[in-house]
Amino acid sequence: MSNILGNNLKVTIFGQSHGEAIGCVIDGLCAGIKIDEEFINECLSKRRPNGIGETKRVELDNYKIISGVFNGYTTGSSICILIENNNTKSKDYESIKDLARPSHVDYVANAKYHGFNDYRGGGSFSGRLTAPLVIAGSIALRALEKLGIKIASHIKQIGDVYDASFNDVEKEVDAVNNKEFPTINDVSKDMLNEMEKAAMDNDSIGGVIETAIVNMPVGIGQPMFSSIESELAKAMFSIGGIKGIEFGLGFEFANVKGSFANDELAIKDGKVITLTNNNGGINGGISNGMPIVFSVVVKPTPSIGKTQNTINMKTLKETTINVSGRHDPCIVRRVNIVVRCMCALVIADLLINKFGQEVFLKEGLK
Amino acid sequence: MSNILGNNLKVTIFGQSHGEAIGCVIDGLCAGIKIDEEFINECLSKRRPNGIGETKRVELDNYKIISGVFNGYTTGSSICILIENNNTKSKDYESIKDLARPSHVDYVANAKYHGFNDYRGGGSFSGRLTAPLVIAGSIALRALEKLGIKIASHIKQIGDVYDASFNDVEKEVDAVNNKEFPTINDVSKDMLNEMEKAAMDNDSIGGVIETAIVNMPVGIGQPMFSSIESELAKAMFSIGGIKGIEFGLGFEFANVKGSFANDELAIKDGKVITLTNNNGGINGGISNGMPIVFSVVVKPTPSIGKTQNTINMKTLKETTINVSGRHDPCIVRRVNIVVRCMCALVIADLLINKFGQEVFLKEGLK
Amino acid sequence: MSNILGNNLKVTIFGQSHGEAIGCVIDGLCAGIKIDEEFINECLSKRRPNGIGETKRVELDNYKIISGVFNGYTTGSSICILIENNNTKSKDYESIKDLARPSHVDYVANAKYHGFNDYRGGGSFSGRLTAPLVIAGSIALRALEKLGIKIASHIKQIGDVYDASFNDVEKEVDAVNNKEFPTINDVSKDMLNEMEKAAMDNDSIGGVIETAIVNMPVGIGQPMFSSIESELAKAMFSIGGIKGIEFGLGFEFANVKGSFANDELAIKDGKVITLTNNNGGINGGISNGMPIVFSVVVKPTPSIGKTQNTINMKTLKETTINVSGRHDPCIVRRVNIVVRCMCALVIADLLINKFGQEVFLKEGLK
Amino acid sequence: MSNILGNNLKVTIFGQSHGEAIGCVIDGLCAGIKIDEEFINECLSKRRPNGIGETKRVELDNYKIISGVFNGYTTGSSICILIENNNTKSKDYESIKDLARPSHVDYVANAKYHGFNDYRGGGSFSGRLTAPLVIAGSIALRALEKLGIKIASHIKQIGDVYDASFNDVEKEVDAVNNKEFPTINDVSKDMLNEMEKAAMDNDSIGGVIETAIVNMPVGIGQPMFSSIESELAKAMFSIGGIKGIEFGLGFEFANVKGSFANDELAIKDGKVITLTNNNGGINGGISNGMPIVFSVVVKPTPSIGKTQNTINMKTLKETTINVSGRHDPCIVRRVNIVVRCMCALVIADLLINKFGQEVFLKEGLK
Repeated sequence: MSNILGNNLKVTIFGQSHGEAIGCVIDGLCAGIKIDEEFINECLSKRRPNGIGETKRVELDNYKIISGVFNGYTTGSSICILIENNNTKSKDYESIKDLARPSHVDYVANAKYHGFNDYRGGGSFSGRLTAPLVIAGSIALRALEKLGIKIASHIKQIGDVYDASFNDVEKEVDAVNNKEFPTINDVSKDMLNEMEKAAMDNDSIGGVIETAIVNMPVGIGQPMFSSIESELAKAMFSIGGIKGIEFGLGFEFANVKGSFANDELAIKDGKVITLTNNNGGINGGISNGMPIVFSVVVKPTPSIGKTQNTINMKTLKETTINVSGRHDPCIVRRVNIVVRCMCALVIADLLINKFGQEVFLKEGLK
Repeated sequence: MSNILGNNLKVTIFGQSHGEAIGCVIDGLCAGIKIDEEFINECLSKRRPNGIGETKRVELDNYKIISGVFNGYTTGSSICILIENNNTKSKDYESIKDLARPSHVDYVANAKYHGFNDYRGGGSFSGRLTAPLVIAGSIALRALEKLGIKIASHIKQIGDVYDASFNDVEKEVDAVNNKEFPTINDVSKDMLNEMEKAAMDNDSIGGVIETAIVNMPVGIGQPMFSSIESELAKAMFSIGGIKGIEFGLGFEFANVKGSFANDELAIKDGKVITLTNNNGGINGGISNGMPIVFSVVVKPTPSIGKTQNTINMKTLKETTINVSGRHDPCIVRRVNIVVRCMCALVIADLLINKFGQEVFLKEGLK
Repeated sequence: MSNILGNNLKVTIFGQSHGEAIGCVIDGLCAGIKIDEEFINECLSKRRPNGIGETKRVELDNYKIISGVFNGYTTGSSICILIENNNTKSKDYESIKDLARPSHVDYVANAKYHGFNDYRGGGSFSGRLTAPLVIAGSIALRALEKLGIKIASHIKQIGDVYDASFNDVEKEVDAVNNKEFPTINDVSKDMLNEMEKAAMDNDSIGGVIETAIVNMPVGIGQPMFSSIESELAKAMFSIGGIKGIEFGLGFEFANVKGSFANDELAIKDGKVITLTNNNGGINGGISNGMPIVFSVVVKPTPSIGKTQNTINMKTLKETTINVSGRHDPCIVRRVNIVVRCMCALVIADLLINKFGQEVFLKEGLK
Repeated sequence: MSNILGNNLKVTIFGQSHGEAIGCVIDGLCAGIKIDEEFINECLSKRRPNGIGETKRVELDNYKIISGVFNGYTTGSSICILIENNNTKSKDYESIKDLARPSHVDYVANAKYHGFNDYRGGGSFSGRLTAPLVIAGSIALRALEKLGIKIASHIKQIGDVYDASFNDVEKEVDAVNNKEFPTINDVSKDMLNEMEKAAMDNDSIGGVIETAIVNMPVGIGQPMFSSIESELAKAMFSIGGIKGIEFGLGFEFANVKGSFANDELAIKDGKVITLTNNNGGINGGISNGMPIVFSVVVKPTPSIGKTQNTINMKTLKETTINVSGRHDPCIVRRVNIVVRCMCALVIADLLINKFGQEVFLKEGLK
């Protein structure tokens, strides 16, 4: 249950950061989808640390598609993707394996799994497991693009530096997707500064990522328990470090009146639109044809080079810890592509429900 | 898919606000749980409008348990609960059925269901469908309480009026649950004022609800796709009007450093605790034994007595609408108990996964 | 889990035979399907006892559609169907409630539910719960028929009397569906004799039901765990009294060689066919376009008027029992329509997976 | 959907016979289960062809556990198991790739996947995919044995040679599991003769496999759609070549009366038993504590060295085919261990539902 996402398009995830390999299995993708390896690698490279305010660890992400692809196209069978772990220094972790790093999973994993968990580098909780999700998601992204649906994520906030919110979405989507450091305005330098400042202070920093989906057909999502919000939120909270999600105005809804918040309807070029998009393209859990817009908050990474109070899980004695090593002081930029990819998996899944398993072979949706 | 929530404890929902009845089916609850009808009615009464800044419509919520309960105890079979609709004035809706109320589901429901949806009073999207969820949830609440797990929700914000956040949670949980208007501090009068002001201005207003779960065993929730955050978020977004959720510090995580955000560990009375609870009792998706704390934002109700631009869905012409009638200018207080009940359903489901279907017959969890 | 069937089209079942009502909720059926009440009643009447070798108990099956249907068409929301229990003599059961009727569920239900189960008339295990399944299935049957897919079940064996197997299926399907006593050859009188003989001897008798699905599109069903065989078998074994299922030649496959069993391929009228249909229209779990053919065995009803050894579940002492009362000496004819209806639900579910939720609005499949 | 089995214990399968590797992911197994590699290899060796009436192809089944196991014990995370394909002669298949082998999946796979399927050696439909299922199942078998639950399968029929049915089950279970050629009576030589005869005649032959589960706790399985019969049948029909399943008396129920078929209850050593076990240990879908007994029929393998009529899928012209090469004239003995292993996966899944995810850490069940 825990490691499988989706209803009609299912992704099963496996692996630990210091095991032999990590990977995933994609089930429910129809036959005949061209695999764009260049695009997969492009997405993977966006997830890799770039060295500025991020870990110096080199992750090559050489992946292999083990099954489900034949002559460059999906076969309709389950697709297994493997990424070998080769730059793992397991010895780093032996010395601190009984010390629970604050706000890490060490304590809960040890308790839940009675000490049998693979504690090296976060084990199965490692952020490294988002790499196979990026591969799966990039396949979904490409499949959605063929149907005209585009998804983009940008960094809306890091520390005290704020990017603009999506406004002229159709244009911004492409622009943001083409950038190394995905922002709408030219704030990347300032954000990188914030990240470096935190790093130099042996501290860490979080941020906010905003995502938009354009050209969604009207009527996607199900009322009640499979609303677009429900399905996207479920997927987003599976990404380590994400602690909040909001759609449209989000928490700002508490500060406005209905007369402001309501999105009035109008006709433009024969198509129904709303004059504002405060609801983020979703009413009653269902897409209304406007861009779907949501934001997630990423907490500061818990690994910091400052001395913190903690416990020894074996002796149950209080002690202190200083988490040195190859860590990301800020993972927001790296998580950005993960959010975009997970979003693609969710939307692809919802489309299959409405249009059937072979939706991705269609020439377009109506 | 859309109308069924849960993995081991499943709730199937049905009904339209102006149909014969609404209700739900609970599947997966073990035999031998005493049904506390008084408590169910107490929870239902908290969901009913109280007339101050809320609809004047009287909803009696006379429910019947059709199956799965015998001699006052659950039988282990699926429990069907019915609430008859008897105070329905269907004619109210005929005259405006082609006009899409802005930010309501009218337009998306009409598009998704090709006009076959029951448009009267929101049909299957009506907030009225939360009544059976409250009944199901109140059964779960009672079952959890027997295991020592308590859940409370309070109104943290309405308009410009703010309540305190949970602080001394164990005490506040009971206090809040006993109040008519659930707040920690004495701000109910100010909040009701905000609600009345909005009502008198033919407008509506939203707010924020904060929830806490105390005495959660360590190790509940699954990594990746069944994290506590994932499962709670999925359930919360099925409640109409909820547009955001955050755990612990939530979006405030973007404004602090790791050294502040991290929850240091310590030993107290032989038990592992954290010195702060910024992560809301969850690490890596799994409970750490501290109170689980999250907030959701409820948007202002879209039904307002002001003239708004909209379209006629039949003619596809632009027009205006003024949504008069029996509406809630503010649903935050009513949603509060729904949030608490949905939370109970999710936690009960997660407990079954770990402890088995008969967990609720245990004398306590370890 | 236990009371919900299906993946994209889900049916939730509830009720006990001596409770207030029984029923089901259908989730995942698209909007715009016309409800044919006459056909529903026709199917229900086939499930009702007709008095010959069957119970004299009168079951009226007056059903109400509580939700999900508006102006005679499905709305796209979940459909709740209720059947009131009104001819229940609960007192009949009090006297024998501690005696486990052999091969009934009494003992396992008492053990599983720790005595909290509703023991009256089989409770939630009563064959009466197939009535809502027949209603749900008859809606599916009609929806499939509009796509050209027809399903028929006939009684292949009762006691020593055998009907022919399906041979000229396309014709036989309609003929069988139009009969009161569904057989291909004229053996109904002999079968009724067998039933009456068993009844007069205070005994019971079982039989075999064969089902055919014609005009199935090629390529339905999924490899591995969602093969047509897997999904049909799972559904069939949820019908009380069914203890075996076989596809095509079934157990006869053990008595023939591959050279006989293999279905050679050919072209007829530009269409691919097989020259025989030993595999019952399924290869590798997937439909091959030939009629899908399977048989199920129904065991003799366990309620018999002979004295049997049993135990008192309360005292755990051995004793004897004589199950008198209103029982069916043979349920094969009544189960026949249940098999057909359950089959329709499974096939409808599989079609949605491939063609999408709105498959039933199509003019035909290709 | 298609490639994932189970509810709380889920197995995701992947791979094609001539791809790089095949394998599976096991999700939902708790931490702390010792992996018995010797037993896994023992089970795998039973699945491998032994050369008598079976393929001469050598399959080494060198498997690797990629994740979820650490220091010899399960970690609680998902377990990925890989088996490399190294003895694959892909060129064999090029010449006949457009010819549909009768009763193979060639035609349906080509139609379903629009020609994108991996046609080499059956692709993802290959019987080779049962190897990872045997590994997953053997882990489940060992976990069940620790709880006292044993499962055994034996060959009840091949051609005209019949073995005895389970009778003194507790003893026979161990005896059968220890045999190279699993039969109760000494009929292996005769069965091997039947297999060789078929092989020499360029033909193939099927058979019947009977399985027993002993020491099942009372009350496992859910009424309606998750009956033991439903769940076992669903799993069994995912094994290639299985075309029928029956529980207890199975199809023989049609030939007996209720007075014979009913299993009378009695008390033995303070425990409730039935005097016969015609219902195969299951009433109303739920275990009654007696051995669970079921049989499946395996059809003759469709690959035979005789000339058969077929079609060219590209030209849609009729033609003939002679399937030469490394095939099994009889797979019954090889399928026997697959049935046993799949059975273990299903029972383990059902136990988790009742007793919780950590059931396998218990000292015993009551």
